[in-house]
Amino acid sequence: MEFWYDFASTYSYPAAMRIEELAGQAGVAIEWRPFLLGPLFQRQGWNDSPFNIYPARGRYMWRDLERICARNGLPFRRPTGFPRHSVLAARVASLDETGAVLPALTRALFRANFAEDRDIGVPEVVGQVLAELRREAPGLPDPARLLARAVEPGNKERLRARTEEAWEAGLFGAPSFVVDGELFWGQDRLEEAFAWTRGDRPVAAGGR
Amino acid sequence: MEFWYDFASTYSYPAAMRIEELAGQAGVAIEWRPFLLGPLFQRQGWNDSPFNIYPARGRYMWRDLERICARNGLPFRRPTGFPRHSVLAARVASLDETGAVLPALTRALFRANFAEDRDIGVPEVVGQVLAELRREAPGLPDPARLLARAVEPGNKERLRARTEEAWEAGLFGAPSFVVDGELFWGQDRLEEAFAWTRGDRPVAAGGR
Repeated sequence: MEFWYDFASTYSYPAAMRIEELAGQAGVAIEWRPFLLGPLFQRQGWNDSPFNIYPARGRYMWRDLERICARNGLPFRRPTGFPRHSVLAARVASLDETGAVLPALTRALFRANFAEDRDIGVPEVVGQVLAELRREAPGLPDPARLLARAVEPGNKERLRARTEEAWEAGLFGAPSFVVDGELFWGQDRLEEAFAWTRGDRPVAAGGR
Repeated sequence: MEFWYDFASTYSYPAAMRIEELAGQAGVAIEWRPFLLGPLFQRQGWNDSPFNIYPARGRYMWRDLERICARNGLPFRRPTGFPRHSVLAARVASLDETGAVLPALTRALFRANFAEDRDIGVPEVVGQVLAELRREAPGLPDPARLLARAVEPGNKERLRARTEEAWEAGLFGAPSFVVDGELFWGQDRLEEAFAWTRGDRPVAAGGR
């Protein structure tokens, strides 16, 4: 199952925290796909999060997210800035060097944003999160080196291509899950996406 | 529980078909609240369904709706026109005379729109749906009389006030469910809304 997420995306936070347990139960491998929602939003005519553009929708989302986190026992503190600039975090997560720890790195960055109200748009903060992670995963390279590599042209291009791939696959929001080309959008569709992996497919695949 | 819906709203269809069984299991009374999504969309800057304005979102919705209907054993045929003009249907559903059969009337109109591809924006079609319903519910007044009453100023004003009430309650889409002032949006939140009626409330009420 492909798991597409943006580090600024509110509903991606509970998805990132929940997916590995569900994947373990289902015996399904997860392909973690950090990407950027901003360029997809721009193609839909938005220069900000739709949760900011449409205040009624935004008010509901924050309350809904609070309920979801409480129901799943996840810590939550509403970020004082929203959306955080997620491009640096996504670039770090796109590095080859972080592949082995990508699930843990992803959770650490989401936790920093949505449970600890740390500004993950700031390089120093991303560096601190990496340093904290390195205590658990000593194989991780030096944070300063990762931050430098993250902004190299090849890596930036890699994230751009990944984001383009998301658009081509029909994605328009996050989190999204793709199983055999079938798209599921929203953290509340995680169970349905896993049902799809089990062959529990009430309609024929395809047809998007 | 208040159940807010618009007859043109795609996800309101499975909600309308599913809610009574869940309400029976939960022992919860449903207050059926037909309203108009159009004026709420206009206040958010949309002159059409967001599923038409944002094609990627729309493509996903039709596939998602197909899956939801298949999973719940509901007939589904994609309407050849979308969104249907739902104002007449909503006005009929707002009449005192239809109160006793409102759940059955609601299901019949949704079925006409999303399972039978009949244009519920046309008075003759609404009249036919009412005539069909009258065979099951002989107490229902003559369809021609209902259609005439539906467009009387007092009834039009009633639907306008209902729609205003929806906006004041923080609604921005349909279907929506309200339990003790707590808002749930989307047919996939039906179970969570019923959990709330049981006092299963992981965070403090209020705070929207």
